[in-house]
Amino acid sequence: MDNFLWDITTKVYFGRGQIKNLGPKAAGYGKKALLVYGGGSVKRIGVYDAACNSLREHGISFAELSGVKPNPRIDSVREGVRICREFGAEMVIALGGGSCIDCAKVIAACVSCEADPWDLVCGREKYKSVLPVLSVLTLAATGSEMDPVAVISNMDTNDKLGTHHPAMRPVVSILDPEYTFSVPPYHTACGTADIFVHALENYLWHDNGAFLQDRFAEAVMLTCIKYGPIAMKNPEDYEARANLMWAGSHAINGLLSLGKEHPWVAHSIEHQLSAYYDVTHGAGLAIILPHWLNYILNDQTVSKLQQLAVSVWGVAPSGDGFSDAKAGIIKMQEFFASMDLPGTLREVGIPDKSRIKEMAQKAFRYISRRSYVPLSADDVEKILEACW
Amino acid sequence: MDNFLWDITTKVYFGRGQIKNLGPKAAGYGKKALLVYGGGSVKRIGVYDAACNSLREHGISFAELSGVKPNPRIDSVREGVRICREFGAEMVIALGGGSCIDCAKVIAACVSCEADPWDLVCGREKYKSVLPVLSVLTLAATGSEMDPVAVISNMDTNDKLGTHHPAMRPVVSILDPEYTFSVPPYHTACGTADIFVHALENYLWHDNGAFLQDRFAEAVMLTCIKYGPIAMKNPEDYEARANLMWAGSHAINGLLSLGKEHPWVAHSIEHQLSAYYDVTHGAGLAIILPHWLNYILNDQTVSKLQQLAVSVWGVAPSGDGFSDAKAGIIKMQEFFASMDLPGTLREVGIPDKSRIKEMAQKAFRYISRRSYVPLSADDVEKILEACW
Repeated sequence: MDNFLWDITTKVYFGRGQIKNLGPKAAGYGKKALLVYGGGSVKRIGVYDAACNSLREHGISFAELSGVKPNPRIDSVREGVRICREFGAEMVIALGGGSCIDCAKVIAACVSCEADPWDLVCGREKYKSVLPVLSVLTLAATGSEMDPVAVISNMDTNDKLGTHHPAMRPVVSILDPEYTFSVPPYHTACGTADIFVHALENYLWHDNGAFLQDRFAEAVMLTCIKYGPIAMKNPEDYEARANLMWAGSHAINGLLSLGKEHPWVAHSIEHQLSAYYDVTHGAGLAIILPHWLNYILNDQTVSKLQQLAVSVWGVAPSGDGFSDAKAGIIKMQEFFASMDLPGTLREVGIPDKSRIKEMAQKAFRYISRRSYVPLSADDVEKILEACW
Repeated sequence: MDNFLWDITTKVYFGRGQIKNLGPKAAGYGKKALLVYGGGSVKRIGVYDAACNSLREHGISFAELSGVKPNPRIDSVREGVRICREFGAEMVIALGGGSCIDCAKVIAACVSCEADPWDLVCGREKYKSVLPVLSVLTLAATGSEMDPVAVISNMDTNDKLGTHHPAMRPVVSILDPEYTFSVPPYHTACGTADIFVHALENYLWHDNGAFLQDRFAEAVMLTCIKYGPIAMKNPEDYEARANLMWAGSHAINGLLSLGKEHPWVAHSIEHQLSAYYDVTHGAGLAIILPHWLNYILNDQTVSKLQQLAVSVWGVAPSGDGFSDAKAGIIKMQEFFASMDLPGTLREVGIPDKSRIKEMAQKAFRYISRRSYVPLSADDVEKILEACW
């Protein structure tokens, strides 16, 4: 187990009615906030009104940035930074899913910088101080509510990049599972796949003795398998929504990855699908995952992939690690299919293979050199070919 | 799943050599500290020198309270409070296991109060402000390094009481598994039993949908089962010591108990053994646990105890829940015995049954009314009789 620092400072108010804590907690950070949200759904489900009321009751005034899209755009960040400066916002409050929270984080980090936000996201310039970020979560998926990372897209350049700063971790997050009751089945499935893959990306590393972390990762994956289908079938099943929501936070807040490497390979590949074709992130992951795992199954990885099959997918050990590992991958494919997730690139509307090579080359640039199994751009191309 | 607040604010520096962070972090809290430790072991293994050097390098002077015993006494707390006031300490730094950390916490919480510390521990008086507590852990067991609880004994009145305050949670803890290399096999076993039981006390609650938390608890228990025996056999096995140490922190820092009840029944019973006969806490727990579980196995508890048997003890499901649950309890007894832990009260030197009734009545006062299975004083007496 490698050395690490545990420093998960987000205060999480979890459960029904916790929105009442937004105003009192925000008041600790100032009197003026920027509210960041997407379309009409936060208004429809009542989050917007509840948040505004709680803020007003505690003397907090706010400006608003609405219309933040899935795979949030750098243009929204620029607009948010402009409003923050004009209004003098002392904090940024996201109402929504990971896209809104990511957008809020990068706005909060760019306000104090003169550089263009895209230069900051690309790492060409450095963040200085970061405004406090608060979040009210309405989708169990990205885990952005408890982590210090944001992913921003630039459709002009077909880039979707991760960026991070310790102070981007939200200081307060409100997690009310009822706010996810209205998430439609398809997006529930995509969110579940996203959570599952976060846990898996943390899990897939060479054995360095981080045993407890791996058992925690299995716990998160088992939670996805149990509750994803229930939440799709019964959108107002509180237990299912609560478990998915809490699993989503822990999948990526650090609990599963401390003391080990976590190279985020599937994510680096998927980000190209989103950047080139605006594919829903969780759907892209569900397509890539089985093909990536099949591609990397070898003598070095077989024991971990067998363990995944046995502990997570309930495969009965046959004595043949490869056969068990493959049985696990098939069960995973069946699981994603049972949640009506796509299994091929064609199903998400990618018309031909014309940009596969380009996407593979781009993904390769972001795949950590310390990848679980080293992949060349050719390898990534073959994986994407298999996905088509 | 019940509503909850996640607010685990301790910064944990985990791994080899992390003691170097003590001085820099302590410097954020002031210039004068009280050091709290036990006997000579912290000097023998070098923690004391390393801590002092790091503090001095960062301009922090310190007074010392040494001689803190296992099952730390209220007298040590009183003495620590006196030194803190005289010296003007701005923080309390524990070097040692849970006993030292617990003692440090209560000292930190009593300095600002005029009342006698025992009145504060008993809850007759209320804590006011709490000095920052830092810890350098040398024993994987109580989890005190990441939780807001302390347990203090008063041998005059045969009382061992838990007390807590949110600000008692250490602000910084240094967890270097190498500092536990010198823990002898018996105390390694006791610590492992303590961690296991913490996870189990959080696990044993009626199903309220906290599925993820239960899987996390199983992860901690599996870690104890795997690494307790390895650490006993190879005291310098870093992987084993690291996993036990990190499991110990998570067993009780809140991760396993959020959103559910956790009535701490076995602990309430065991505290009487420690208070009356100064029994080592983990050893007392190992004796009580199987008899408590046998006693409460009934139609309401069988499915949870069967789940424990299957998921944690590897019992193959037979179709008969009671038989599986019992097989799990037997495996647990065998596991404790394999680690040379005592199985009866006689083995820990309790000479006769003369005080069993008195201990049972006292335990009953502290068993939460919302106990997993309600127990009367008579029930506790029967459990203790079975332990004899």
